[in-house]
Formats: sequence, C-alpha cells, structure tokens
Amino acid sequence: MRCDTLWHNAHLATLDAQDGGLGELGDGVIAARDGRIVHVGPARDAPVFEATHQIDCQGRWITPGLIDCHTHLVYAGNRAGEFEQRLDGVSYADIAKAGGGIVSTVRATRQADEAALTAASLPRLDAMLAEGVTTVEIKSGYGLSLADECKQLRVARRLGELRRVEVATTFLGAHAVPPGMTAQDYVDEVCTKMIPAVAAQGLAEAVDVFCEHIGFTHAQAEQVLAAAAAHGLKLKIHAEQLSNQHGAALAARLGALSADHIEYLDQAGVEAMAAAGTVAVLLPGAFYFTRETVLPPIAALRAAGVPLALATDSNPGTSPLTSPLLAMNMAATLFRMTVSECIAGFTRHAARALGRQDRLGRLRAGFDCDLAIWDIDSPADLVYRMGMNPLHARVWRGHPD
Amino acid sequence: MRCDTLWHNAHLATLDAQDGGLGELGDGVIAARDGRIVHVGPARDAPVFEATHQIDCQGRWITPGLIDCHTHLVYAGNRAGEFEQRLDGVSYADIAKAGGGIVSTVRATRQADEAALTAASLPRLDAMLAEGVTTVEIKSGYGLSLADECKQLRVARRLGELRRVEVATTFLGAHAVPPGMTAQDYVDEVCTKMIPAVAAQGLAEAVDVFCEHIGFTHAQAEQVLAAAAAHGLKLKIHAEQLSNQHGAALAARLGALSADHIEYLDQAGVEAMAAAGTVAVLLPGAFYFTRETVLPPIAALRAAGVPLALATDSNPGTSPLTSPLLAMNMAATLFRMTVSECIAGFTRHAARALGRQDRLGRLRAGFDCDLAIWDIDSPADLVYRMGMNPLHARVWRGHPD
Ligand SMILES: [Zn+2]
Ligand SMILES: [Zn+2]
Repeated sequence: MRCDTLWHNAHLATLDAQDGGLGELGDGVIAARDGRIVHVGPARDAPVFEATHQIDCQGRWITPGLIDCHTHLVYAGNRAGEFEQRLDGVSYADIAKAGGGIVSTVRATRQADEAALTAASLPRLDAMLAEGVTTVEIKSGYGLSLADECKQLRVARRLGELRRVEVATTFLGAHAVPPGMTAQDYVDEVCTKMIPAVAAQGLAEAVDVFCEHIGFTHAQAEQVLAAAAAHGLKLKIHAEQLSNQHGAALAARLGALSADHIEYLDQAGVEAMAAAGTVAVLLPGAFYFTRETVLPPIAALRAAGVPLALATDSNPGTSPLTSPLLAMNMAATLFRMTVSECIAGFTRHAARALGRQDRLGRLRAGFDCDLAIWDIDSPADLVYRMGMNPLHARVWRGHPD
Repeated sequence: MRCDTLWHNAHLATLDAQDGGLGELGDGVIAARDGRIVHVGPARDAPVFEATHQIDCQGRWITPGLIDCHTHLVYAGNRAGEFEQRLDGVSYADIAKAGGGIVSTVRATRQADEAALTAASLPRLDAMLAEGVTTVEIKSGYGLSLADECKQLRVARRLGELRRVEVATTFLGAHAVPPGMTAQDYVDEVCTKMIPAVAAQGLAEAVDVFCEHIGFTHAQAEQVLAAAAAHGLKLKIHAEQLSNQHGAALAARLGALSADHIEYLDQAGVEAMAAAGTVAVLLPGAFYFTRETVLPPIAALRAAGVPLALATDSNPGTSPLTSPLLAMNMAATLFRMTVSECIAGFTRHAARALGRQDRLGRLRAGFDCDLAIWDIDSPADLVYRMGMNPLHARVWRGHPD
C-alpha cells in the first residue's frame, strides 16, 4: 500500500473507541495520503506500506489535532488596563462610564484596518497552534455594524490563509447592542440586513447570539436564529452563562450545533439538548476568570449523554486565554471532568460542535490527517500539568509544520 | 562611561520605587558591566556610554528577571495517573493504599540516579526560564534519607550549572515521615544527623519544615528550625496551609526568611510576621489545584506591611505548575492581588524571601544584571493574559540567552 507519510512507533489516542473513551493503542501506526488518513491501527496488523516519508515517533503519543470550537480571537485593543483597574478597586460601572468594557474593544476593532486587526490577532492564534490546535472557530461580534462585522470575518478567514489551520467563521452580530441603537432595532437590522449580507458573501458558516439579561432576550435570540436558518446558516448560542433564559432549549429546538457556557442550564434544557443532539460547549476559562461559582450541570449532561466539548472562549473581557491545555486543566480541576472527557472535549466533541464530526476530531481512515504529537508519558499529562507545553510536532493535512 | 552592554529605548519597571510600586520609566536605559547593573534611569539623564554592545529594545518592557522563591521541581516519577484516578472517583485513601501520593514520588526519587533525576527535572526548569526566571529556589524533601536528600540537593545545584540561572537550595528533610519511622524519631534524625551533614557539605543555604497536622507539629518544627539556626542556616516554613498551627509566628520569632502558604494564618500571626520582617510567600497554584476555599489574609498582611512574595510551588502532588505568569494570574484572579503586587511578588519580594534583596529583584545600580524583556503593552499584560508567554529575551548576569 502506498502512502505519503507513515508515522510509526507511536502511542495513539484515536478518540475513535466504541465506548467514547480515548481509544488508546500501545504500538500504533498512522498512514496518510493526499492529506487524509488512509490507515490507523496497531503496528502488528498494519499492511506493508511504501511510504515516501517514514517518521519514527519514538514512543511519543499522537492525538487528533486540537479543535478550539469557541473563540473571539479577532479583535483590537487591550483590556489589561481595565483588569488592573478592577484589581485596584474601580467598579465595573465606573470603568463603563469611562468608556471601558466591551465598547472599548468595539471602538478599537472598528478603528483597526484589516492589516492591523490581523497583526493583533496572529499572536493569539500562534499561541494556540503551538499547543497543537489544527482547527479553530472564530466569531465576529466586536464590529456591530455590517462593515465592521464583515471586516472581522474577513480577517478570521485571512488567518486561515496565513497559517496552516482550518478556520470556521461564525457571525455573532448579536453580541451586544451598538451605541445609539435600541436592542430591538439592532436585532431587526441583524436579521434583515446583516445575516443576508454575510450569507450572500459566504463570510460565515454559522450564526451565534448572546442570549442573556445583559444581551438579547429569548425572543430576540429566536428571531436571530430563525433568520440564520432561513439563510442556510448553522446555529450556535451563548446561553445560560449568567442566568437561565432557556436559550439552550431554544437552540436545541431549532437544531443548533451547540449551546455554549450553560452554567445556569436546568434539567429541561439538558433533556432538550440530549434529544436534539446539541453539543454542550463548556468554557472553564470564562468560569475561572469571572470567578463564577455556579457550575454547569456536568453530571446531568453526562447522564443524558450530551456530548461535552471544551473551548478557550479566547476573548478580551472574560477569558483572555489562548491555551487549550490550560482550559483542559481548568475543566478537570474546576468542573471535575475526567481526563478522557477533557481530551474528547477538544477533539471529537469539538468537531461535532462545528459540524465536522465526519472528517475531524478522531484518528480514523478517511478523516483529515490533523495530528498533535506529544512528549508525554500518558494522555493524563495533557490535563494534569499547568503551564507546560509538551507538544513535539503538529501535523496539518498530512504535513508536519 | 564604559559598559559591556547598554539596553536603550525601553520601558522599565524597576521595582525600585519609594512607594513600593512598579517604578515605571517611560524611556529608560540600563547599562551593565561585569554582570552587574552600573546605571539605570531615564534616557534623558543618562551619562554618555561607550558600550561594547548596544541593544535597541524598540519600546519593549524590561522587568527584573523573575525569581521563583518556592519550588520542589527536582523529583522523579509522574503523578498524572493519580490525578486521572481522582477525577474518575477513586478516593485519596485508596490511592494511598495502592502506594500513591507523596510516597510514590519518594520511591521514584530514591530509585533515580543523579543523571535520571536531572533529566526529569530539566524540562520543568526550562519551562520557567522560558518565562523569564533568572533565580529559582529548589527544595529537597522527596528523599527522606540523608543520602537521597543530598542527592536531590546536588541535582538542584547541578541544574544551576547546566542552565544560566541562580539556584538557591533548601533542605526540606522534614517534608514527610519516611515509611517505617515515627515522626519524632525522624525529626531527631533530621536535627542530629541530616542538618549537620547538609550544613557541613554546604549543600543547602536554608532549612524548611512542613508544619501541619498531616506533617510535623509546632514543637517538631521548632526543633528542626532551631537545629538549622544552630548550624548557621537560614529558615523557612510551610505554615498554615490546611490549619492554624501557629507555624508562621514561630518562624517569625526565630527570624525566618519566610512563611509560605498561610491560608489559615490568624491576626497574631500576621502581626508576628510584620514585626519580624518575615516575608509571606503565597502559592496560588496550590490553592487552585487543591480547590482550597479559605483565602490567605491578604488585606491584613497588606495593612500590616508584610512583604508579599509569590511562587509556583512547582510539585507533583498539589501544584504541577511551571508558569510564574500563570501564578501571577491566579494571584490576581483568586486572591485579588493587584498587578503591582503580582509583579513585585516574583521580583522584589521574592528576592527578600531568599535573603537576596541586596542584589536581586530590582533594576538598580550595583544589582546583578538579571532582566526579563517583554513584548507587552504594559506590565498589566503579564498578569492579565492566560497561557501566552510574551517573553522577548532573558538576560542573566548581563548576558542575553
Ligand atoms: Zn463566547
Ligand atoms: Zn511547597
């Protein structure tokens, strides 16, 4: 059998086991041709390969490349000063009065041209790639006008040309109300002007909405998601982060890919998600950074069989996090998720949260050959350590960096 | 004025201000000769230098090199599997029964020879150096026999030869009771055999003791510290981590450099530390990883003027953390320490916790020229971001890496 590259002498965590666990293989091989996996399995059962490149992994571990399925990493400006003020005792209200908070990110993002926005965002993406990320979702939501939202989405797409990574773009026009408008007027504009334009230009594959008492109401979220569905876009929702607005159940009813955050999700929401196959995207970085004390209903989600994805939620206000490994540690430490759950959350289930479960997130013949190769003793090392990056090599579409 | 190297066009955080703050300088220069700082100040007031090397910092920020003043980074074995078991619901008791916990680290550390122990520890040290650490304290405490404790201390010293970093070694024989001995018999051996031998061989400059209901009693801690003082060694204590044993007050009375952890410190302890000038070494990584809920009495320590140092506590059981930057973020997020306090905690006050306040931890003429040069907009970036390392260059004794 011919292949371009054969990785051998490797421990594999395929994430492709029947039991939903890590699918560990002690002495495994992976063969790739034309960017796809053509064979994965134990060395002893492998066909004989004629490989252009042979890579001896020296016993290292290979997982699917990591998938960060919820980020806001394209933005300009810096909110570190605001963080410092908060620690010095300045109130949110006073910071907002002085033009801080999300409006400061919106202002800076609007002012930045595409080149500046790209340059500001690349270091955040590069930090993720350095930890083995091969697919990243990026949301708009700091433009809040058609032109500025489209600019953010074009920059997100551009990042995927500048780096060897797959970028999934999501339109989050309904992230906040822009200055000078009512929420309902803005939602109407999102639905009647912005979603159609974004869809027509093919700038996003999904639409997201911030359903919260400080964001958009349940009815407004439904309006946004219905408009998105009418234009053939996939659906996502920021739901139940600060209170229970029944946003996750709404998203499940409308066939959304995922409901994200969900600390305040109730049992009915859990059941709605389970019935619809909606992925729960948990964001422990935001939980940690905002010092939230209400945990997402992990046990109930687990019992109901809802797939649990994890993501960094990389954003300037509530999760200035660019480390998927640290997000895994937080999920284990703060949410008591298991090692298998944490790793599946950044691979198999993250792929599902992006509608890519048929070609990403598992080591499986026919899937894209996106790999992370690690200098670790066991997969648990990825979750246990804090602040150490054991990535040995990243492979995207069959090619090592 | 002649110098070896001149760094110019830099923002400085000297940590040398009268007010105890960051000591920020907008357009600063640093000149070094023979590994020491010979001048630091604003560019406009600087003398004319004849410099062998001129380094244009292009507006980057320079802080003192970071000082991690409390680590246990020399050990063998891996406790990631135990972490995984805990998340799977296995109890501490069952893990201990199966030979897990600290005794597994002791067993692996005893079995490792110096080369293996060095190889196991270097990646942890390297992760710290990559974030700008120029001085690191390393404790023994996983040997629990004279030969194995000395081996650990020799490896710690060896790390300082293999890398461009200053290593301060601390003898922590009284970390746990070795299997097969009573606590009192072991303390007697620590005091009458081990401390004299370690002192005679010059393997450690300080002695530490774990004063806790699961460690050594107040009386035993006093016995250990008194023996250390009698042999001319400096004193440190692990105190008030899980309960109030009045260990910090004991350490203060005996003139210790620092009392470390101190979540359960009472007001009398705060006052004793303030009166004696004992440094409080706070360890937010252990607080986070063990999900402690009792905060150290930061406000009282602040009010009393106790210097607050921070450290990673890098260790396999309760803080597998190798990132000083993440420790700063945890100190801010979880302890509400200010940006200035976090940075002083890893520089100026960490130097004091190691008795090196007269030559390390500040940018000041006469001090060793250990620098960290950062790609940041402001010092707050070091504390605010999670999982991104903005180090541009590390300078140790006047020489860039
Ligand atoms: Zn988000
Ligand atoms: Zn310690």
